[in-house]
Amino acid sequence: MFTLHPQLQADTTLIKKLEVSQVLLARDSRYPWVILVPEVENAVELHLLETDTYRTVSDEIRFVADRLYQHFQPQKINIGALGNMVPQLHIHIVARWQTDEAWPGPIWGVGEAKPYPDQEIMAKTEDFRNILK
Amino acid sequence: MFTLHPQLQADTTLIKKLEVSQVLLARDSRYPWVILVPEVENAVELHLLETDTYRTVSDEIRFVADRLYQHFQPQKINIGALGNMVPQLHIHIVARWQTDEAWPGPIWGVGEAKPYPDQEIMAKTEDFRNILK
Repeated sequence: MFTLHPQLQADTTLIKKLEVSQVLLARDSRYPWVILVPEVENAVELHLLETDTYRTVSDEIRFVADRLYQHFQPQKINIGALGNMVPQLHIHIVARWQTDEAWPGPIWGVGEAKPYPDQEIMAKTEDFRNILK
Repeated sequence: MFTLHPQLQADTTLIKKLEVSQVLLARDSRYPWVILVPEVENAVELHLLETDTYRTVSDEIRFVADRLYQHFQPQKINIGALGNMVPQLHIHIVARWQTDEAWPGPIWGVGEAKPYPDQEIMAKTEDFRNILK
């Protein structure tokens, strides 16, 4: 049975579910940062997904990237499947600006997360639910 | 007309062409590091490719990741579409180990590239041509 990795559970809130993936909001207000987690038990590597699942996940990545791009109009979308620290397969989709803290480098491992305040996190998640409709 | 960005031209050698993408070897011997560049004029964002092209490129990413994974048997494959520095759309596919210089962080912007020696670069490119057959 699929269960979300405890680290991802701690670091995100659930925006919605797509056909294959959970769409999670990273608890870091420095960037509009969404994480896709395909609900496939023991999946670690993107390329090892079954062909149909891989294609659906690819389409889900595109869908999320497109919605973030349209809504936030960032200078760049960054997409990354790393998983060196949290092995459960997950794909980062992040809106980037020249003014953000990590630009032009990648965001991972840079500085400290700035969590959304507790009293805002549900409203913020709902915002993303609307953006990703 | 599509032309490869001068920075990518300087930093890579051409391994082969797939249906849509050029497959390039990064001139950095620290990692088995391949870069896919879809031959689509003015493409910057992965998600803005036409649907058919997007799906073909997704399959090409999977193909390259799979071949690197089978051949090098790394601890992890990292896939990234960033483009914050070089705007031309390109997708990094990198084999990673716990013993490599950047682990567990991303490779981009970490340390200095260690170019393959000039007398080895053609043979190395040919090695990757065989790996990606």
